[in-house]
Amino acid sequence: MKIQNPRGTRDCLPEEQITRDEIVATLKKVFESYGYLPLDTPAFERWELLASKYAGGDEILKETFKFTDQGKRELGLRYDLTVPLARVVAQNPNLTLPFRRYQIGKAWRDGPVEATRYREFIQCDADIVGSGSPVADAEIISIVNSAFENLGLTVAIKINSIKLLNDILLEAEVEKEKMASVILSIDKLEKVGKNNVVEELNKKGIKKEAQNNIFDLIEIEGTNEEKISVLKNKLKTQDGIKEIEEVLALCTDLKNLILDLKLSRGLSYYTGVIIETFLKNSIVKTSVCSGGRYDKLLGSFSKSREYSALGVSFGLDRIYDAIVEKRKISKKTLTQILFVPIRLYAESIRICDEIRKQGINVELAIEKSISANLNYANSKGIPFVAIYGEKEKAENKIKIRNMKSGEEKLVSASDIRSMI
Amino acid sequence: MKIQNPRGTRDCLPEEQITRDEIVATLKKVFESYGYLPLDTPAFERWELLASKYAGGDEILKETFKFTDQGKRELGLRYDLTVPLARVVAQNPNLTLPFRRYQIGKAWRDGPVEATRYREFIQCDADIVGSGSPVADAEIISIVNSAFENLGLTVAIKINSIKLLNDILLEAEVEKEKMASVILSIDKLEKVGKNNVVEELNKKGIKKEAQNNIFDLIEIEGTNEEKISVLKNKLKTQDGIKEIEEVLALCTDLKNLILDLKLSRGLSYYTGVIIETFLKNSIVKTSVCSGGRYDKLLGSFSKSREYSALGVSFGLDRIYDAIVEKRKISKKTLTQILFVPIRLYAESIRICDEIRKQGINVELAIEKSISANLNYANSKGIPFVAIYGEKEKAENKIKIRNMKSGEEKLVSASDIRSMI
Repeated sequence: MKIQNPRGTRDCLPEEQITRDEIVATLKKVFESYGYLPLDTPAFERWELLASKYAGGDEILKETFKFTDQGKRELGLRYDLTVPLARVVAQNPNLTLPFRRYQIGKAWRDGPVEATRYREFIQCDADIVGSGSPVADAEIISIVNSAFENLGLTVAIKINSIKLLNDILLEAEVEKEKMASVILSIDKLEKVGKNNVVEELNKKGIKKEAQNNIFDLIEIEGTNEEKISVLKNKLKTQDGIKEIEEVLALCTDLKNLILDLKLSRGLSYYTGVIIETFLKNSIVKTSVCSGGRYDKLLGSFSKSREYSALGVSFGLDRIYDAIVEKRKISKKTLTQILFVPIRLYAESIRICDEIRKQGINVELAIEKSISANLNYANSKGIPFVAIYGEKEKAENKIKIRNMKSGEEKLVSASDIRSMI
Repeated sequence: MKIQNPRGTRDCLPEEQITRDEIVATLKKVFESYGYLPLDTPAFERWELLASKYAGGDEILKETFKFTDQGKRELGLRYDLTVPLARVVAQNPNLTLPFRRYQIGKAWRDGPVEATRYREFIQCDADIVGSGSPVADAEIISIVNSAFENLGLTVAIKINSIKLLNDILLEAEVEKEKMASVILSIDKLEKVGKNNVVEELNKKGIKKEAQNNIFDLIEIEGTNEEKISVLKNKLKTQDGIKEIEEVLALCTDLKNLILDLKLSRGLSYYTGVIIETFLKNSIVKTSVCSGGRYDKLLGSFSKSREYSALGVSFGLDRIYDAIVEKRKISKKTLTQILFVPIRLYAESIRICDEIRKQGINVELAIEKSISANLNYANSKGIPFVAIYGEKEKAENKIKIRNMKSGEEKLVSASDIRSMI
């Protein structure tokens, strides 16, 4: 038997997991600071729910891990955290609205494995259900901004609106039934370039004149205000432009918020403002956080009720890559003191507990010599080593060595807090 | 389509999840205070690994969710966190030993669903790999004690030793090849009572005299010291008793540590000290934390290396039940201030951000009237409501209402920290 992890998955050893946990803790703190509360749902869902046309659709279903339980019920590993949210909302009609929840958890897709594409990944989602107000859109954008501020990463937050894109397509005289498909093509602009998108639009039977009109409108340059003012003059239907104008007016503090008229999304369930976030000065070029408003999705699972909803999803793996790039040195430990007893184990266990009660992380060295333990502390970046033997016991003290400066001091256990 | 979660699973809505997150955070903090570091592994493993005779065995495999990936590889959802640890250790021969890791994650078993038995559950495991020293056993026991102290729950920690049980069975003249099976029968004493265990031992062909000898020894009463002293006089083979004596000598501070000679485990991979933890004065009667030493398991996955190892697993669901029972009132929110704007949304968004920067959780009320929002804050237990309208804006202040006392004050945003 070859010992290995399943294809497309990976282990996160402590050296990596410490930083991942820190990112998750930061996101949790930010979400909670906006009144968002944690939700947890099972890793798998009933297949018929995942397969619903309102959920992922055929494309995503092909990549969903499928199995049955002992009662022959068909199940699938969840491919996102939005479908579970839709189910929870439908199942709990008495939830107070607006319902703000966050969920941080794994999702799985059995797709092709690439260098940065795994079959198991972690999503960090914050959504607000039950408000159609632009204040909710502004709140979600503010969460994105605050999260990256707290993570110490500089971002550009790009927004657009599906409603506005529809208005633009209407102006360009694209037929109604082709609009969703054209929006999916526009989504590829950044990835495949204009020529390929034009080719795709030709295939979709979009007339040359309509194409030119589309590009004239989405390629408007200038500040957010300039774009809005040009569009206001050019568009007959103004619902979309009014909506995005309202949202922007609520976010005047955010200098990194860009109205990008070329921005679109590959998922067809978005109905309003859409968001994509890009890091500045980073090796990570793809979006690190995206989302938008999806006012029809949740209602489609409920019998008699519509739910406005919007949210964003943070990509933990890409954020991790960006933070590691920035930090240069990885954090290998959370331990503050390596406590090395010279034989006196029972006393050492007691002293370590006393130090831990002061909120200090102490690792008790069980094996190896003092010098081997000093090397270990060095290699792991543990900042202090404590030595405790008969000599120290006689003075009722502990010898503490600062691993950076090499300085050694005798201190009593109760004074250690002030040392480190 | 009926909207429901898969059989044997459940959703944890915020009201429940807030407390679960707190328990997890406490356990994380305790594990890290002992130098244990986080590890993450995939939710599923290769089927052949899970099916290995060294891992769970047939019994558990019947309850393992099985599926294949697009490449027809056989996979299974993990049924515990120990097999993934064994794999990680085998796959990373350069890990510095002793390797202390904790892992908090879901595991799945497709078994019969009962009131308190779910098909998806959370395990919180702390293990130390690569030390055969009794200091490691004492450390794990100390972690259990510290965890429940930090959780505010009073426990009895029961320990015993598989080695000692083997010595007892040797003394009682049980044949070597029947020992493991007899230990599995002893494990059922608490659950099914002595009569049923006697019947089982009869069926297993254990002679009446041997049975009497076994019960004479495991039913010794008294303090830990008294039990040890009696056993020392009665046992010819003293390895087991010496080992447990050493461990107890390292734990003299723990008044709640009980040597229970009748304690056994239902899993055959344990080789030394075993641990079960029970709550005092709680509705939860079953073990809330259990584990032990398993010196052969990890080596069985590695080509040329033996690994001593031991650890414990905390049962999140039972701990949650006990904490909810103790608290009486559930914590419905983490929000400290509900901020209710009277129209002035753009300013309110800005002020809320300013308050959040002081480390305060603020929920912005988007919908509903002031009185509806006051009711909402009341029902959720949000301690403060802030009101901000033209009147407050004119004074550059915010009106803060203490929901408990009903007291209202005008304060500036920067002074809110001192108010709450």
